[in-house]
Amino acid sequence: MVTACKEIRVRYAETDMMGVTYHANYFVWFETARIHLLKTLGISYKELEKKGYLLPVIECHAQFHKPVTFDDLIVVDTLMESNPGIRFRIDYQITCDGQKTTTGYTTHVFMDEKGQVTRPPKTFLDAVEAHPDGPSTN
Amino acid sequence: MVTACKEIRVRYAETDMMGVTYHANYFVWFETARIHLLKTLGISYKELEKKGYLLPVIECHAQFHKPVTFDDLIVVDTLMESNPGIRFRIDYQITCDGQKTTTGYTTHVFMDEKGQVTRPPKTFLDAVEAHPDGPSTN
Amino acid sequence: MVTACKEIRVRYAETDMMGVTYHANYFVWFETARIHLLKTLGISYKELEKKGYLLPVIECHAQFHKPVTFDDLIVVDTLMESNPGIRFRIDYQITCDGQKTTTGYTTHVFMDEKGQVTRPPKTFLDAVEAHPDGPSTN
Amino acid sequence: MVTACKEIRVRYAETDMMGVTYHANYFVWFETARIHLLKTLGISYKELEKKGYLLPVIECHAQFHKPVTFDDLIVVDTLMESNPGIRFRIDYQITCDGQKTTTGYTTHVFMDEKGQVTRPPKTFLDAVEAHPDGPSTN
Repeated sequence: MVTACKEIRVRYAETDMMGVTYHANYFVWFETARIHLLKTLGISYKELEKKGYLLPVIECHAQFHKPVTFDDLIVVDTLMESNPGIRFRIDYQITCDGQKTTTGYTTHVFMDEKGQVTRPPKTFLDAVEAHPDGPSTN
Repeated sequence: MVTACKEIRVRYAETDMMGVTYHANYFVWFETARIHLLKTLGISYKELEKKGYLLPVIECHAQFHKPVTFDDLIVVDTLMESNPGIRFRIDYQITCDGQKTTTGYTTHVFMDEKGQVTRPPKTFLDAVEAHPDGPSTN
Repeated sequence: MVTACKEIRVRYAETDMMGVTYHANYFVWFETARIHLLKTLGISYKELEKKGYLLPVIECHAQFHKPVTFDDLIVVDTLMESNPGIRFRIDYQITCDGQKTTTGYTTHVFMDEKGQVTRPPKTFLDAVEAHPDGPSTN
Repeated sequence: MVTACKEIRVRYAETDMMGVTYHANYFVWFETARIHLLKTLGISYKELEKKGYLLPVIECHAQFHKPVTFDDLIVVDTLMESNPGIRFRIDYQITCDGQKTTTGYTTHVFMDEKGQVTRPPKTFLDAVEAHPDGPSTN
């Protein structure tokens, strides 16, 4: 299990006229947390793309337990299996003031630049495997 | 079963550096299609909010089969149970050039202005029930 | 003078907790109207990019006279000089229910794929010049 | 002169298929930097709204000198006149790796909850006036 934890401050732009965060924006926060998770493993997603690997989202899901709103400081806990295959999933849990507000996941595949599904690069697999268990903070 | 169909032209702003639509934006299209579905039933969501009803998304999901990109004309088919309860689900299928690209759903509850879950207004239930089956086009 | 006119329905996602459209989103509507203007000239921006031309925004401006909100049907009037040079400007005016709500402009240059400023392709200049004056509707 | 400085990491969602940040998103970064500027003055914009004050953008402008892209760490320098009147302007400059990439401004008015322009609250004016000159870092 590989985990990481990322704090994000909710932007005004991310709210809607209901006075809370518009639901689609949670997936942007998931992205921020996912990129951070990879960084804690020593993996730069930007570098991965430069080497010709893409990591598109092929499925995503979120469940909203409590709303969050402008200026809230949310904590996104992220969790990835330590043995990612061709297709792997990352789980997210958002808390705010210690209360669980949102859970969700994204599923990814590695793709090459032609859009073909491909095996994860060895450096990626090694980095994930080498990572000691337990949370790493923001 | 209540259904509707909405065409949407993909915006440049909705793409990302992968050259295709960023996944979170599909939920905005689902919103557009959902609002359109309600309109075909004679329901203005704007009016619903003015009467004190909110219809937040409490869960959402999407599966991405093929990407779509800038200037594509997508068709969002929407489907709602004709007997919505306290909690109800809307299903979406996006096609582009006749090919299925995306499927997904959103789950909603009716809330009053204090944030309490509430029964759907009778006008809403009547409108859904009265609607003849079959697709209505954009 | 080349002009065009595009109707856009305001999305819920485009509002913020002030209850009106978040200001940054107007630039997305300007984009939609600009792409439409080019189409009325017979120019597909998607094709332009495929041929190696990019048309980035190098400056943008907007002035907000009245807010618009969810489900409003806005009309974006767009105007371009009929003699675009290396750098050219497009002006926008948004009205809603016949009232002017927003004005703005974007300035563009043609760039090649290496990011170098380049002259507009002849097909672009010809299309703009050939266009009869006067508005073309959505 | 009141100044502040805010670091922001560019999100993947903020890029477009040109491979760089979509221009409208700079205004969201300006918002983030503006909220941060107010915080360095001891002003919570969230609290201001709770007290019935709104601070809408009535004009905005940006000039793009160099693009920035995913994962870039940008620095937004913000500057406000120390004597804000009914209408006041905030200036922004974005640098990335020490190079100026973007400049812009937003103009604001104070509004009450009915949408009427109103004088800034005394606490706001006092906080701005009391602030020692010079940059405050992120």
